Amino acid sequence: MNGAKSGHVAVIGLGPGNASQVTPEASEAVAAAKWFYGYGPYVDRLQLRPDQVKVASDNREEISRAQAALAKAAEGERVAVVSGGDPGVFAMAAAVCEAIEAGPPEWRSLDVTIVPGITAMLAVAARIGAPLGHDFCAISLSDNLKPWELIEKRLSAVASAGVVIALYNPISKARPWQLGKAFELLAKILPTTTPVIFGRAAGRPDEKIEVTPLAQADASQADMATCIIIGSAETKMIDRGGRPALVYTPRFSAASA
Amino acid sequence: MNGAKSGHVAVIGLGPGNASQVTPEASEAVAAAKWFYGYGPYVDRLQLRPDQVKVASDNREEISRAQAALAKAAEGERVAVVSGGDPGVFAMAAAVCEAIEAGPPEWRSLDVTIVPGITAMLAVAARIGAPLGHDFCAISLSDNLKPWELIEKRLSAVASAGVVIALYNPISKARPWQLGKAFELLAKILPTTTPVIFGRAAGRPDEKIEVTPLAQADASQADMATCIIIGSAETKMIDRGGRPALVYTPRFSAASA
Repeated sequence: MNGAKSGHVAVIGLGPGNASQVTPEASEAVAAAKWFYGYGPYVDRLQLRPDQVKVASDNREEISRAQAALAKAAEGERVAVVSGGDPGVFAMAAAVCEAIEAGPPEWRSLDVTIVPGITAMLAVAARIGAPLGHDFCAISLSDNLKPWELIEKRLSAVASAGVVIALYNPISKARPWQLGKAFELLAKILPTTTPVIFGRAAGRPDEKIEVTPLAQADASQADMATCIIIGSAETKMIDRGGRPALVYTPRFSAASA
Repeated sequence: MNGAKSGHVAVIGLGPGNASQVTPEASEAVAAAKWFYGYGPYVDRLQLRPDQVKVASDNREEISRAQAALAKAAEGERVAVVSGGDPGVFAMAAAVCEAIEAGPPEWRSLDVTIVPGITAMLAVAARIGAPLGHDFCAISLSDNLKPWELIEKRLSAVASAGVVIALYNPISKARPWQLGKAFELLAKILPTTTPVIFGRAAGRPDEKIEVTPLAQADASQADMATCIIIGSAETKMIDRGGRPALVYTPRFSAASA
């Protein structure tokens, strides 16, 4: 698709934060764009040329950021919207789609490309073994955009079905109690020894990966940059003496329905 | 960790099959290894130097492949185990962990690195919009490694809870009826209009992405190389006239628990 006349929007996943985990496709998409919209810390990761322009915005302004990017593209410009991780996982790709659907008709004719990235749960899982080695889900713990009761319902449903859980957006200053509540709820369903992985800043210099049995898991182990993986009853730990333990979920399950 | 004495195993995700979606980290890990173990078509993607050795094996031989790779590393060699997509998602990272757990004690002291990759559902989602924009799960439809009843239980649980579903391993010659059964089961839970995305070979020259309402979804639309994404009741399509429709799941949910 040639966007020369109608403008172009690339929604780009920059991965967890390590330059070696940015795909060549993402780097090429960055090189091809002029205007860069994104949450400040993500835009700040980019090393841009003098002819490229950063438009940073706050974390919570996803829709207005998407609208600004689309409006700029509608002027015939080449625009990038950047996300950490993968843009399709609790990030800007859905916000851009929402803005297109609700926006002026001409936004529908824009050339839109979405460039996938390594999402946090994959990066965290890789640092500890293979906790997502069998059926798993990704759930956002933020009740800004859905009712807390729905989050509880989903956590119960997936844990009861033996599906490993990756929690995104586990905690923030405005949402201090939700993670503790989630651990409480899951402790009634899963074995007390179920491994809980707190993966902070995987692949970055300030990386911190901790494993705690569910019974001892504490919300204070997480912050906004943490992705939490909660195993199933079948998730195992392999003690390796001098090396960090491996945590994995076997490919097979003998669990009964 | 320096593996000079004890040998080293890198479990490497090569992404969906497009060279531009292989991370620099994965390319560096390939360059650093001597022995390459993997399913034939994945090993064949590698462009190796004359001093590097391919050991291809069949699709179903995951454990024996992992054991062979670990045995070679235990000789002090630098070994790579390659997977398409991400090695932690229904792939070789779990098989390597299983082999370490069941294997001789010296395998536990091997230096093991897992290099994440773009997994199929992320690549497929990016080609169509943002169907994984809110809570989602990844479920393997293969009943080689778990009972079919458990798969049905999990599909019912996640669909009933409003979680989008990515199906891996949807169909094979030995498993011809399972996907049709899954569609039947889901059609009793989800609206007939729920978008079903058949994403085959995303990002490769033979890519084919189709969207079908659940009521018309047919197992013949899939093969072994297809990742299927089944929306929730909230997943939407945006008609764009001359351009392909966008399919996305909004970041917010008003669904009641």
